[in-house]
This record gives sequence, structure tokens and C-alpha cells, in this order.
Amino acid sequence: MYEDTYGQVISSLALENDKRIVLLVMDGVGDCDNDGGGTALQQAKTPNMDALAGRSAIGQHVPIATGITPGSGPGHLSLFGYDPLVYQVGRGVLSALGIEFDLQKRDVAARLNFCTIDPHGRVTDRRAGRIGDDVNKRILEKIRGDLKPPDGVRVFFETVAEHRALMVMRGNDLDDNIGDTDPQAVGVAPLSPARPPHDKSKTAKIAEEIIGQVRKILADEPAANMILARGFAKWPNWPTFTERYKLNPAAVAGYPMYRGVARLVGIQVVSQPTTAADICAEAAAAMKEHTFVFAHFKYTDKTGEDGDLSGKIERIEEMDAALPTLLAADPDVLIITGDHSTPPSLKAHSWHPVPILMKAPHIRGGGPAKFDEIACRAGEIGTITGKELLPLAMAHAGKLEKFGA
Amino acid sequence: MYEDTYGQVISSLALENDKRIVLLVMDGVGDCDNDGGGTALQQAKTPNMDALAGRSAIGQHVPIATGITPGSGPGHLSLFGYDPLVYQVGRGVLSALGIEFDLQKRDVAARLNFCTIDPHGRVTDRRAGRIGDDVNKRILEKIRGDLKPPDGVRVFFETVAEHRALMVMRGNDLDDNIGDTDPQAVGVAPLSPARPPHDKSKTAKIAEEIIGQVRKILADEPAANMILARGFAKWPNWPTFTERYKLNPAAVAGYPMYRGVARLVGIQVVSQPTTAADICAEAAAAMKEHTFVFAHFKYTDKTGEDGDLSGKIERIEEMDAALPTLLAADPDVLIITGDHSTPPSLKAHSWHPVPILMKAPHIRGGGPAKFDEIACRAGEIGTITGKELLPLAMAHAGKLEKFGA
Repeated sequence: MYEDTYGQVISSLALENDKRIVLLVMDGVGDCDNDGGGTALQQAKTPNMDALAGRSAIGQHVPIATGITPGSGPGHLSLFGYDPLVYQVGRGVLSALGIEFDLQKRDVAARLNFCTIDPHGRVTDRRAGRIGDDVNKRILEKIRGDLKPPDGVRVFFETVAEHRALMVMRGNDLDDNIGDTDPQAVGVAPLSPARPPHDKSKTAKIAEEIIGQVRKILADEPAANMILARGFAKWPNWPTFTERYKLNPAAVAGYPMYRGVARLVGIQVVSQPTTAADICAEAAAAMKEHTFVFAHFKYTDKTGEDGDLSGKIERIEEMDAALPTLLAADPDVLIITGDHSTPPSLKAHSWHPVPILMKAPHIRGGGPAKFDEIACRAGEIGTITGKELLPLAMAHAGKLEKFGA
Repeated sequence: MYEDTYGQVISSLALENDKRIVLLVMDGVGDCDNDGGGTALQQAKTPNMDALAGRSAIGQHVPIATGITPGSGPGHLSLFGYDPLVYQVGRGVLSALGIEFDLQKRDVAARLNFCTIDPHGRVTDRRAGRIGDDVNKRILEKIRGDLKPPDGVRVFFETVAEHRALMVMRGNDLDDNIGDTDPQAVGVAPLSPARPPHDKSKTAKIAEEIIGQVRKILADEPAANMILARGFAKWPNWPTFTERYKLNPAAVAGYPMYRGVARLVGIQVVSQPTTAADICAEAAAAMKEHTFVFAHFKYTDKTGEDGDLSGKIERIEEMDAALPTLLAADPDVLIITGDHSTPPSLKAHSWHPVPILMKAPHIRGGGPAKFDEIACRAGEIGTITGKELLPLAMAHAGKLEKFGA
């Protein structure tokens, strides 16, 4: 098993003090060139960030590893210093976080797709023609009404969007040794969740029973007459942020997924703002009680996903204008970065490194007063992996002991 | 055991599509400064590569790890994305590949040195005075004629060059738990291949029997009266390139070693050109049927090994002139790099990082229109390890799924 040696060493060196670290995540902020015009950060007017860059350390981070495009979960775990190749979280849990389902430690969650099967039981469309949210909700209501839960188990079916839903089994002594039922192909039957090596799992048999009932309940639903389940998983038993770093953390995040990932490592959510002005104000306020504040701004990612370059530029400028509020609270270390890049030209997350700005007390300096991908790749931090960012901030904040005598 | 976690994650994310990736290896292309005149790449006139660099991502790779000089096998495995510290191939297998011996999966191969021993059986010269190829061949013929192979085993003795040869045992159920017999010193006897911990190996005893016969056969050969064997190994049971990356690969390579390393990971050799013009034409042709083309140019290494700086410069210019043929076929991603550096001043492979040019669709740009070691070390790819190069190309070609939700 690949181990998190670096994280363990950092944890063993962690010291408690009153210094404040703020991690401001502009989700998906990184970009590629746009038809010779440069990246969104290059095109945005960001006088506050640029001036701050001139008295900060800059650089870039590779969120997971070269060439790997991070999902939101792994991207944030990396920023929290949890190696995402070690701390892998099941898709079921991420789905639950994404809709803010109140997942409990004994629950087992799975991501569902509605699909269609033919009279022989073979999958004909793995996404049921991407049914609309209204059909999704109506069918889930029918399942909820007709399902007879196996003894000792509560079952939740929750809508996500289009063909996607969440299933959660709640009961004592449930395990997540359960196979995906999605065959990842059409023309074949869904797989059994209790096939080897899952055949000794009591919970896999419970899942099989539930899915069998769902098939009968949906028999007369031509649009979506079956479900496929993936990523059965329990809440992971990881060291919390406080255990790992001796930090007293808070999250300021307006979107469910990011509040969920924060909760996954034991970061308390103290506020749910969505605009840059509110985020900066709430992060400044959270600094009073907390030694670490994670503040999340969604719209740099959303505009990137929409392919909306001018929107992305505007959202960056919105954050730049809000920044003085946060600076006025004078965090000892302020990190401005993203969890990944979301180039408008790709309309998707990407693998590109992400620029870092770290206002910190012990920098070398001499870099340019400019915060963008091109300036950052030549900056004093160099190129690091995402998981190294928080330890670097802790070092600047005097929160890491010397290693060895 | 150090594991190839990165490679496994990349493999789990691999997607099939029609995009074409071409990896053009200018063997040993990296260089050091030459008496203040710069590197071979700096001195060569390369208008095509320079122009391409201006619209590509550039950088450099460390083939294995800092300070480690790669052999041709590990250097190429790294470019193929196989961590050479994990995917270690025995010297016997590399020797077989180097002379294009048709090694089968049940064979056990060893690298041989002819040596001399004194009347007490102690090694006096581990390389038999570097006998000429003619003596090597004559003695091997004698061994072939006189050897009585142990039951159920065929034995091949093949010439390599000077004092070097290859031994292959072919039979069912052979293993490669066999000790090197080279004592790595003079004045002591060759070691037994069946000494502990190899004493339980049936094949080690077969090797001992064969080597004992060879000693008798060569008793009256004063120039080379014994052999030393190293690196007994079987064809490694690795995931193929197609299994690992869902790519349909082809090799265009004129020299046995590189065809052999390609075969080692299941890359089909489709053409064997040696000139730059032919290599570029054949690589372009191979793109029609294959989603990945490995094209190998030997002479940048050969001139480096010969200490021939002006020759190396000419060979680089030869490739530059040929490049438009390959560019005309419009690969979606084109990588130009080397498997290692071969500075003429060292007349040998070296540990220096190797420049990378990656023509790819989603670059940040802003770099210089120059392809050489100095420009590349400040490029947007930064410094990566060799094994990260192919995953980065796959990301650009849309061949890697997102990691996590």
C-alpha cells in the first residue's frame, strides 16, 4: 500500500500557536491560453492580487499528479494536505456530500444512475436518455413509496440531477464490501452487488435485495426501468484536521460539495456565503475564533465549465475587489489558489498546474507584482504538489517543529 | 516494495479515443556545454523545431531520478510511462533484446562475459582481454558443437561483441532464481549459480551443469577459457501498453535494442527505418492505423558516444529538416525528446535532464521559440520525471478520465 509518509511526518511536527492561516480557494482558477489572448488571470484586472503578489511568494501546484484531472473531492483533499492517492473516498460518499445528505458513520452510500433494460434484462441505455430532474424525482418518490426495506435497515433514495441519484443504507454493522452493479457497457445485464469477492458481505446481499425490489417497482416505467449502483462506500475513518495539524479549522463555503469535503476531514462549516464580498467578510470574521479558515469561491469554476471566458474574468475581478476586506483582518499566512484548473476552452476541469499566491512572513521575494499562471510558474515556490501547500503555510506560521535534532 | 501507484492510477483513468500521440525519441539528445560553445541543440540550426517550440509546451524530464544515468532499456521504459525503478528488467533479457534474439516467455536468458581463469580456477581477467568479435564467434561455435544439453532443455549461445555473449536456456518450467557467477573481482573462483538462496532452483542446477561443461570445452582456449554469467532473467510479465493505456501502439525503430524494448511492453514494430527522413515518413504512415507511434532516431546518441560534437549537431539538423513530413500528418500530440543525455564531452550516457517539446492543444504558451536545454528548463512543463511524460500527453489528447468526483 502506498503510504502517506510525508503527511505523517508533517503531522508529527505540528505545533499549536495563535497564528492565522487563510486558504482562499478560487475554484478552478487556472486556465490555458485563450486563442493567443492569454489566460483568464492574465486578462483580468487584478490590482489587489498583483500588488499582493509583489510582496508574496508565488508558484504553482500540481493538485494530484502530472496529467491527472482532479475531481472536486480529491482537489480539495490535496489542498487540505491529505494525499488524494492515499485518501481515496468512494463515489457514494462524494455523491452524498454533493447534495448535503446528512451521512452518518454507520451508513453505506452508493451513486445511482437510472438506466433502461430490455425484456431480457440487458442494459440498453446506462443513463436512461438523461431523463429530466422531474422524471428523476417522480420515479424516486415511487421507489420510496413501494420499497419494503430489509429487516433492520433504513433505505434512502435521494435525487441528484438528470439520471443521477443517491442510495443510502442505514443500519448497524453494515460494510461496504459491495460490488458496482454498473456493467459499464450496454447489451449485458447489470452485475450482482454480491458477486465474488463480495459474496461474503451481508450488506452486499441487502443491496441485492433492494435493487431486486427496485427492478420490480420500475417494471412499468419505460423511461427508466432500472438502476445501476457504483461506489458503495462508508464515511472514511480518517484523522481529522485538528488531529493531524493541531489547527482549529473553519470552513466558509456556499456550495454543498465543498462543505461536505470540509466535514470529511473534520472542518466545521461556520458560514455559507457565495459572493466574493461575503466570502472575504465571513473569512475575516472566522479568523477571530479559528486558526485556519478555508474560504471557497465557486464561480471561477462554474464560468470555466460554462466556457464563459469573460464571465470567468469578471468573477476573478469580483474576488480581487473584495480582497481588501480579508487583507484588513491581516492573516499571518494567506494562500490564494485553486483546487484545479478549469479552462473555458475545455469547459471542464483539467490537469494543468494551478497558480499559488502565498502572503507569508519569511519570503525571499524578488518576484514580479503579477498573479497569473505565467508569472507563477517562475515564482519562488516553484512547482509543488497540492498536498505540500498547507505544510508550507504551517512552516511560515511557525506551526512546524524542526525535524530531527 | 516501492509500487507504481502513479502508473496504476493513470491506467485506471485511461480512455480510448481516436486522437494520435507521436513520441519522437532523438536518442541521447541532451548535452552539456561544450567548451563555452553551448550544447549540441544550442549550436544546431533547427528552424522547424524552434518554430514548433514557440507554439508548444516545453520543459525537461529526469529519465529515472536525479543523478541516475539510464541505460537504453530503463530510459525507454520511462518514456513509455513504466517506472523504471519498479519495472526492472534483467540484463539477460536486455542482452537478448539488443541482438534481437527471439526470446520466448519460457526462456531464461543470461548475459555472458568470456574471461580467463588460472590453473586453480581463479579469475585472472574478467573480460578475457576484450577478445575480438572473430574469436568470440569461433569459441561460441565450439561450445555449440560440443555441449550436451541437459535433458529437456535447449541451450543457445549467441555472440554480442568483443567479450560479450548471450546464453539462453529454453524448456518448460524453468525459473530465473539463479545467481550471477561473476565474482566481480579477479583472484577468486567464479561463483556457483546454484549457491544459496538459489540452491532450491532446478534451473540454477541446470545452469551449473552447462557452465561446468563449458569450462571443460574451453580448457585449451588460452584467450578465453571460461565464461561468467550475470542477470539470469525471464521475459517479464508486465501489463502491455494496450492494457495499460488503451492505446493501439506502433514502433518505428531501426535498431534491435529499441525494437526489443518496444516489444517488452507489447508495442508492435511496424517499420525499421534509420534515417531521419524515413523515420518521419514512416511515423506519419503509422499514424493511420495506430493511436500511439514511438519513433526512434539512433544517431544523436551514437555521435554523442563517439565524442563527435559536430556529428551530433548534423544529426540534429538532419532530424529538423525531416520534421515537416511528420508535422504534415498532424499528430494531436507530438513529443520530441530523448531517453537520456549523451554529451559528446562524456562519450557516454549521462544523468542530465532531457529537453522536452510537446506540441499539444491545451498549452499556456508564452515560452520562447527555441528548442534547447536552456530554453526548456524554464518552460511551462517544468521539470518532470520521464514516466510523467506519456500521461501528460494522454491528458492533452483527452485520453484520461477525471480522478474522483
